[in-house]
Amino acid sequence: MEYTTQMDAAKKGIVTRQMRDVAEREHIGLDQLIDLVARGKVAIPANRNHTNIKGCAVGERMSTKINVNLGISKDASSMDDEIAKYRKAIEMGGDAIMDLSCFGKTKTFRRKLLAECPVPIGTVPMYDAVGFLEKGLSHIEPREFLEVFRAHAEDGVDFMTIHAGLNRRTVERFKANRRLTNIVSRGGSLIFAWMISTGNENPFYEYFDEVLDIAEKYDVTLSLGDAMRPGCIEDASDACQIGELMELGELTLRAWAHNVQVMVEGPGHMPIDQIAANMLLEKRLCHGAPFYVLGPLVTDVAPGYDHITAAIGGAVAAANGADFLCYVTPAEHLRLPDLHDMKEGIVAAKIAAHAGDIAKGIPGAAQWDHRMSEARRNIDWKAMFAEAIDPEKPRAYRESSPPEHEDTCTMCGEMCAMRTMRRALEGEKEF
Amino acid sequence: MEYTTQMDAAKKGIVTRQMRDVAEREHIGLDQLIDLVARGKVAIPANRNHTNIKGCAVGERMSTKINVNLGISKDASSMDDEIAKYRKAIEMGGDAIMDLSCFGKTKTFRRKLLAECPVPIGTVPMYDAVGFLEKGLSHIEPREFLEVFRAHAEDGVDFMTIHAGLNRRTVERFKANRRLTNIVSRGGSLIFAWMISTGNENPFYEYFDEVLDIAEKYDVTLSLGDAMRPGCIEDASDACQIGELMELGELTLRAWAHNVQVMVEGPGHMPIDQIAANMLLEKRLCHGAPFYVLGPLVTDVAPGYDHITAAIGGAVAAANGADFLCYVTPAEHLRLPDLHDMKEGIVAAKIAAHAGDIAKGIPGAAQWDHRMSEARRNIDWKAMFAEAIDPEKPRAYRESSPPEHEDTCTMCGEMCAMRTMRRALEGEKEF
Repeated sequence: MEYTTQMDAAKKGIVTRQMRDVAEREHIGLDQLIDLVARGKVAIPANRNHTNIKGCAVGERMSTKINVNLGISKDASSMDDEIAKYRKAIEMGGDAIMDLSCFGKTKTFRRKLLAECPVPIGTVPMYDAVGFLEKGLSHIEPREFLEVFRAHAEDGVDFMTIHAGLNRRTVERFKANRRLTNIVSRGGSLIFAWMISTGNENPFYEYFDEVLDIAEKYDVTLSLGDAMRPGCIEDASDACQIGELMELGELTLRAWAHNVQVMVEGPGHMPIDQIAANMLLEKRLCHGAPFYVLGPLVTDVAPGYDHITAAIGGAVAAANGADFLCYVTPAEHLRLPDLHDMKEGIVAAKIAAHAGDIAKGIPGAAQWDHRMSEARRNIDWKAMFAEAIDPEKPRAYRESSPPEHEDTCTMCGEMCAMRTMRRALEGEKEF
Repeated sequence: MEYTTQMDAAKKGIVTRQMRDVAEREHIGLDQLIDLVARGKVAIPANRNHTNIKGCAVGERMSTKINVNLGISKDASSMDDEIAKYRKAIEMGGDAIMDLSCFGKTKTFRRKLLAECPVPIGTVPMYDAVGFLEKGLSHIEPREFLEVFRAHAEDGVDFMTIHAGLNRRTVERFKANRRLTNIVSRGGSLIFAWMISTGNENPFYEYFDEVLDIAEKYDVTLSLGDAMRPGCIEDASDACQIGELMELGELTLRAWAHNVQVMVEGPGHMPIDQIAANMLLEKRLCHGAPFYVLGPLVTDVAPGYDHITAAIGGAVAAANGADFLCYVTPAEHLRLPDLHDMKEGIVAAKIAAHAGDIAKGIPGAAQWDHRMSEARRNIDWKAMFAEAIDPEKPRAYRESSPPEHEDTCTMCGEMCAMRTMRRALEGEKEF
């Protein structure tokens, strides 16, 4: 084995297959890419056992990626339904999939997914711990958590969320700084309950070096979870959140020293005017590690529409440096998303990512909009649908309401500005 | 008559009935409000003939308002359908209605609407000109356009969009600065076609003093239209747009000298990183006049989802000083919106406005989020629905997927972080 992880390869100047994929997709030279990967600014999640993966990079200078969550649980127990969701997600341009399975034959599902999936797969081992170890949470021994982590790594999982920053210091800070909605991270709340119930330090923190050994062996990218992410706009940017972020920054350096790739997870709920400062803080405190955000949701009051509140925050975050957006569906806070919710969530996240890419000046981003607007000026409906982020919905809209003239739509009818301007600029005099 | 317009009253220190409504709604003292209205920073659109109107203010220090478009046209000819839309829009919290009727019995519809509507009604006289004057656009005499304006004013219309900034100077600038999608403003393109076809100056510019006489008499707030708003992100912030904005700034001062209230209309399509600069420019070049934006849409590539691209831009705009957001529906660029599209558009616009209000520090804004998040922490579903920006959709979501335990939802099931934290903080040890 010439190298362990993509970061190790980059440090040694070795060009991997995945780096070639990335260089092509991102219109970037291999030298520049290798430098970014070696310094941890870019992560290429690619477990050595996930052999059919295509390289996909997250971080500085890369296009903003989006993640789609799915998985089997008590309330969504059909593997076939979840596999159907996965296939639709890939078709619609999802860049990564997180398998959040927490009940039932999670191992079978995970392996099935990895066998066919060409994009990075992430998991949260905490969600699978009780099922995997077949015992109540409070009765799990510290090192047993590492066994779940190892099992996922062996199966080929490309990135794993661990809430290693929720250590005793962070818990102390949480106790000293009251917040409105406490801990809203699912994995974080489970670790917190385990720590309170057993009196022990967080095992992912205490045995972080062992985690790194496993991660390096398989090239698992650590996604350092933010247990203290604000669960409401009132808790945003508080001492709990920023304190944990500093812990994640220290863990990032330890991981990089072991050639382990890192992404840092971020908020959460956050007023729109705090987002830019938070992006800056993460890049500073976590030494330029890629930032993976869930939202941010810019208001708490819109259940049923949180794909929109998240798209607003995600676009602002991406424009200010976030690298990876976790999709949020209209079902957030209410129920498990169905296939329709997933589609709405994917499109909203892709809009946010692309809006960010235009602002970031990612090569090729604004050209897409140019092609669309050229089609619009030419009133070329076929080209407009072809360029649409989702061709299905606009086509259905137009077909539902056929206009009198092919070169208009029913929105403006004969008053279509594109049509009027075309005629005026061609010298027509009679309107 | 003690005063002509709300601005005239404010300059004379007279407190109007509408100012009292505004002071109560906006938690602001009358002295401060009067000062803002007198200086044009705040407009209170309220035609003297629209007698059942409740005061609603747009501008500095006010909560961000949203406008809902509707109206009868060739493709939406049923007055009853449009009246039903109007009623739903008011029920959902629309702050103003623009009646964009352009075909059929527009006068009957307008009067019907004004008779029952307590919020400001806006129109675009250009849309109604051909129908009102019963002749082809190119054959309309300059001053005849003023007759349409006067008729709407007499009927009680509170604010009217006129594209007076599209004068010969602006047309010259348009010719000297090529842009991808030319003029995408419906009214603007009609004025342009009329100017090209007749060789005349824009009548709303040429006879602006006569427009002001009518506007002052009835207290019509001018909504100075942006014919040159960018129709694609590539055209954003170009010389055509900024040149026209300077014309609008000069017209604003002329209007204020006649005690006529003004709002300035703005983009359009615009990359997210240009929005803040544009808000600053409008406030500077138009002397602090309220800014009424359509979008901005932060990408061109998402037909079918433009309520989301507009919510992103609208939230950023509002956070940076935009005062009034025109709603955009998922049907934008594709067809006339139906009732469902209108609802989605209203909620998206209200989310954007509220996200902006949180950032602006508008009194009461963040408290709404506080109440929602308290309900969420308490896992109090009834309170959550009561606080939701739209209670219908989240309730339907939850009812569609009943969870095993009442104090969870199917999203996280037993792993609900709110539930875990409640148990942990109450001292429970067994998880």
